[in-house]
Amino acid sequence: MILSALLTSVGINLGLCFLFFTLYSILRKQPVNADVYAPRLVAEGKLDLRNSFNLERLLPSTGWVTRAWHPSEEELLNRAGLDGVVFMRAIIFGLKLFAFAGVVGLCALLPINYIGSQIVIDFSDFTNKSLASFSISNVNDGSKWLWAHFGAVYVFTAFVCCLLFLEYRYISLKRLAYYYSSASKPDQFTVLVRGIPKSSTDSLSATVEKFFSEYYPSLYLSHYMVYHTTKIKKLISDAEKVSRRLAHLKSLQKTSQRFGRVGFFWFFGPKIDLVKYYEKKLEDLEDNVRAHQSLLSGKVSEVPAAFVSFKSRLGAAVALHVQQGENPTEWLTERAPEPEDIYWPFFSANFISRWIGNVVVVFACVFLTILFFIPVIVVQSLTNLDQLETWFPFLTSVLNIRVISQVITGYLPSLILKMFLYMVPPVMISLSSIQGYMAHSQIEKSACNKMLWFTIWNIFFANVLSGSILYRVHIFLEPKEIPNILAVAVPGQASFFITYVVTSGWTSTASELLRLMPFVSNFMGRIFFPNADEKFEVPSLPYSREMPTILLFGLLGITYFFLSPLILPFLLVYYCLAYLIFRHQLLNVYSPKFETGGTFWPIVHNSTIFSLILMHLIAVGIFGLKKVPLASSLIIPLPIITLLFNNYCRKRFLPVFKGYPAECMIKKDRSEEVMSEFHEKLVTAYQDPALKPIYFSGRTDGHNAPLLASGT
Amino acid sequence: MILSALLTSVGINLGLCFLFFTLYSILRKQPVNADVYAPRLVAEGKLDLRNSFNLERLLPSTGWVTRAWHPSEEELLNRAGLDGVVFMRAIIFGLKLFAFAGVVGLCALLPINYIGSQIVIDFSDFTNKSLASFSISNVNDGSKWLWAHFGAVYVFTAFVCCLLFLEYRYISLKRLAYYYSSASKPDQFTVLVRGIPKSSTDSLSATVEKFFSEYYPSLYLSHYMVYHTTKIKKLISDAEKVSRRLAHLKSLQKTSQRFGRVGFFWFFGPKIDLVKYYEKKLEDLEDNVRAHQSLLSGKVSEVPAAFVSFKSRLGAAVALHVQQGENPTEWLTERAPEPEDIYWPFFSANFISRWIGNVVVVFACVFLTILFFIPVIVVQSLTNLDQLETWFPFLTSVLNIRVISQVITGYLPSLILKMFLYMVPPVMISLSSIQGYMAHSQIEKSACNKMLWFTIWNIFFANVLSGSILYRVHIFLEPKEIPNILAVAVPGQASFFITYVVTSGWTSTASELLRLMPFVSNFMGRIFFPNADEKFEVPSLPYSREMPTILLFGLLGITYFFLSPLILPFLLVYYCLAYLIFRHQLLNVYSPKFETGGTFWPIVHNSTIFSLILMHLIAVGIFGLKKVPLASSLIIPLPIITLLFNNYCRKRFLPVFKGYPAECMIKKDRSEEVMSEFHEKLVTAYQDPALKPIYFSGRTDGHNAPLLASGT
Repeated sequence: MILSALLTSVGINLGLCFLFFTLYSILRKQPVNADVYAPRLVAEGKLDLRNSFNLERLLPSTGWVTRAWHPSEEELLNRAGLDGVVFMRAIIFGLKLFAFAGVVGLCALLPINYIGSQIVIDFSDFTNKSLASFSISNVNDGSKWLWAHFGAVYVFTAFVCCLLFLEYRYISLKRLAYYYSSASKPDQFTVLVRGIPKSSTDSLSATVEKFFSEYYPSLYLSHYMVYHTTKIKKLISDAEKVSRRLAHLKSLQKTSQRFGRVGFFWFFGPKIDLVKYYEKKLEDLEDNVRAHQSLLSGKVSEVPAAFVSFKSRLGAAVALHVQQGENPTEWLTERAPEPEDIYWPFFSANFISRWIGNVVVVFACVFLTILFFIPVIVVQSLTNLDQLETWFPFLTSVLNIRVISQVITGYLPSLILKMFLYMVPPVMISLSSIQGYMAHSQIEKSACNKMLWFTIWNIFFANVLSGSILYRVHIFLEPKEIPNILAVAVPGQASFFITYVVTSGWTSTASELLRLMPFVSNFMGRIFFPNADEKFEVPSLPYSREMPTILLFGLLGITYFFLSPLILPFLLVYYCLAYLIFRHQLLNVYSPKFETGGTFWPIVHNSTIFSLILMHLIAVGIFGLKKVPLASSLIIPLPIITLLFNNYCRKRFLPVFKGYPAECMIKKDRSEEVMSEFHEKLVTAYQDPALKPIYFSGRTDGHNAPLLASGT
Repeated sequence: MILSALLTSVGINLGLCFLFFTLYSILRKQPVNADVYAPRLVAEGKLDLRNSFNLERLLPSTGWVTRAWHPSEEELLNRAGLDGVVFMRAIIFGLKLFAFAGVVGLCALLPINYIGSQIVIDFSDFTNKSLASFSISNVNDGSKWLWAHFGAVYVFTAFVCCLLFLEYRYISLKRLAYYYSSASKPDQFTVLVRGIPKSSTDSLSATVEKFFSEYYPSLYLSHYMVYHTTKIKKLISDAEKVSRRLAHLKSLQKTSQRFGRVGFFWFFGPKIDLVKYYEKKLEDLEDNVRAHQSLLSGKVSEVPAAFVSFKSRLGAAVALHVQQGENPTEWLTERAPEPEDIYWPFFSANFISRWIGNVVVVFACVFLTILFFIPVIVVQSLTNLDQLETWFPFLTSVLNIRVISQVITGYLPSLILKMFLYMVPPVMISLSSIQGYMAHSQIEKSACNKMLWFTIWNIFFANVLSGSILYRVHIFLEPKEIPNILAVAVPGQASFFITYVVTSGWTSTASELLRLMPFVSNFMGRIFFPNADEKFEVPSLPYSREMPTILLFGLLGITYFFLSPLILPFLLVYYCLAYLIFRHQLLNVYSPKFETGGTFWPIVHNSTIFSLILMHLIAVGIFGLKKVPLASSLIIPLPIITLLFNNYCRKRFLPVFKGYPAECMIKKDRSEEVMSEFHEKLVTAYQDPALKPIYFSGRTDGHNAPLLASGT
């Protein structure tokens, strides 16, 4: 790829970014778009929705930038929770990393690369220069200058490790501080018990009651069984819809609008009073729900899982950490999620079924990865125009037009890849839910992990390997060859990844600000379904989509740091953009749905360590290829030291992220004196929302008492 | 190797075995050998040591066989503990496995191999037949008969997995039953705390007291600090030696014998009264010990580790399983060993030093493995006589003598290997102790694991790979080639491993009965050092030496089952011998020094799973080589299923081996009503023996009160 193609791509994307910013700064001022651009503020009632029109509303402005910049980390913590802070720390980590790398790379390595003469260059025109002349490929074989790259690898690794250590420590302290400062929450006192053994005489609920009141008489408080409630949930959601429609109808001013046709013969049926019709329907639904709720008390619909609450945090920790039953597949305990965080639909409580689910998901992930090779190959064929011409000869004339060829090589490939990649996170989330996680936060975290490795494999490796020769997956069966093959293939894809940073990094992040999809759907909704009965929901940050992207760019930066430092300024711009935009979104758009207490950080740590090891492998190969075998061998201790460092960090910090120390729990237990009130709340905290009495129609009759007694 | 060489080897070893048995049955009847052949009975005072001479004492007899055969597993459990039972179950497991494999192998596979004609055979003489004609190498390429081998691999794998499952379940139930039936033991109530943070004001002991009495006021009982006592231990051991010599001198009848020369000028000094001399020396030593003990109360010699005892088992479990301090490298808790099981010398309590120790040990193990290649290569050169002749031409005439060449190829190699292998377990034990384990049982278990992988690597892989071509270690860098290379190399070493089973299995096991080394040292001791001041100690079963041997034979049997079924009858004989002999030794010779509650079983399980996977890999290669690619591909699901089975077993059974369930602990806590008496004992159970008051000289003075107050 030549410099001018890169410049084209940069130009296009810069233009798009400015377009997005301008559009955003105008659109967000229109009150009709408040639901899209500040849903959180709308939900909190903080937005001033006066509909007064003035000229200022049509002019772009930059006030949002300073508003996003201003708040301190403390304020961010209050608004977005510790997970939001950790997400921002991941971006700041990238910024620090590549600021340092950028200085080293641009001041020391880039000039060295440029003065080399390994690649024959056409000196006629600077813009026709190949990007390869800025990469390590241009340094002459056996040159002494390569020791500068060698030193840079060592210095950079040391810098990254120091930063990782400091950051891990900072976040683990934050996590403990957050725990100390948080209010009493039901999940701190509760464990989820699965694999409750069936008894021939008692119901599962009685078995749980018996077990815990026998073994933990002084600690056990209450329990709540889990029931199969899919059917009831469906009915309640129908009732909610009808109730919203009813509210909408009642709010209409003209009574004539209240009449309409319903049912299958929409066009032909008689016009009826819709209010009456829906009121009748709502009452029917409510009766139906209550009938189902009363049926649930039997043994039939019990799931062998229960939320067991204890009187103290330490009590819950004991039940959590000590194996309970003699059979390790029964009485399995795990940390209970926050009540709002529970993912009710998949409540597979059986040990075997969850185990099989896990196995199936592993195979499904492998299959998905293989399937995804198809778009990757298509994308790669676009960067190799010659190959495309041999495959489709009739395109030759079109491809010879300079602008088209530059757009195709510089812009299209990563756009197509990005489109396909957009479809993966939902799949990963559904796979994670099959695995038997029972909290949105856990599903999100597991999907984030899956998505990360999927992204690294399908964006990094698939492009690197297919770019040189298709189907070179088998190199992973010859570990000895890996450094050499990577050393040949990775530098060759530098230009592709630079454009990837520009298109996928810059523009996608800018479009995150514009929220194109929600904007379009909101716009369409207002035009076509003005009386829509959709519930207005504040979105939460999609960690499983955004986190892997940020970490992938980290991987690209770390691996290309000494190969092709030209990528670093583009990455820095990306991280700056991401910093501003995600801060803004966390403050205005997203509202945290759950709080994992910063447990996303270990993912960032692991991914960074992996990137470092990959860089070392490539370095071993490159120095071998460049005929400096001594440097190649001297790199080998580096991955070993890095892995030892990682092992130390795992022991030093990871336990804090897996649970909370007894010291903290006991201190916190003692700091709260009057607990009886909280205990009362705790008893009902984990009731399935489907089993709570419903009051949509405003009709109150004898049925309204809670139908299922809790285990107390 | 030809059949007659094998027969020579079998003949020699059968002869040796019978010789050993005969010698044993005569020697064990001599009262002077009681310390060697029934030390346990001597220590228990169960042996009738009347010195009446009769003819029967000189005749070999087989009474010991029935006495070893008779006791039930229950009796064995009482005598040898659960670890002894698990050790015997490992042997029985091998017996069951190879009884089944033997029937399938000898009835179905061996005839098929024999009727093949792939290897050109000299039909002139049956005894000159190569052993290869009984192996799978003799089946014609592409033959339909190979499907019999394919079926055998599947059936055998299924059989092994079933057996593994049943055995794991049996032993986990045994473990729980053993726990329920065991008396209250201090280790059930105690945890070892390491990484106690230093405080500027308090001593470490005060810090521990403060921490646990603050956070576990109702559960905490007492604690015992660990001190640096190497110096005192040395003094006490000296005092013990002097005291034994004194006792010996006092028991002498002639007073003239009590006079002798001492000191450096042994020959020239004056004759003095030795009794007086040693009494003076003993008193000096005791004073010295007491002086050192009183010095220890300060902060200086405190190790940041303490044994913390709780009032109930659940209390100890809580401290054990829940992370205690905010910093995961401080207040590290682990299961306390039994007081007698503690390995006092290495009490590195610092997190960092233990971590570094672990890293160093990994490198040391790798180095040792590489170093061990030298004897392996020497041994392999002996099996290839032609190579030996080219290296040392002057040996040609000697090697041409039939008997000598047969002894060299059939007997020497495995003997040399066995000799070298004898030196490894002590090294492994010292490596394990560097890692920071603080119990003999843990060191033994860790050494057993190290020794197992060392044995598998250095006996199995090194022989297989160097037998065909030296230095073929690099195949592990080309995973794709592994099945093919193994398929070529493994069947070629069948004859070596058959002789290995015969020499190393049969004869070594028989010599275990004869206890040659202890016998010789006892004999020498009686002749040359009649007034030796050595302490008489009952030995314990050296798991780290015997367990890996048994498992290695399991590996050989599993991998060669379908390659060369001829090995199976030899293995069966080995397991029968081992069953009888080790049962006998456990009842009469060894006395258990510790009780891990059967936690050696997971090692057996893992090793068997590894053997299965190895067999599958070889099968993939063999069927490929034999031109039945379909069978080769159809084997591939088998290792995957085996690994899934293993994963299931880990989840289903392993947790029980890592600790005890809360249910058991609470039940056991409740079953004991009056605990105050036991608690009193518990308070002093973990006192360092070096800090207990000593009374060798019989002199009692004011110093005798315990010098260090415990933490209560």
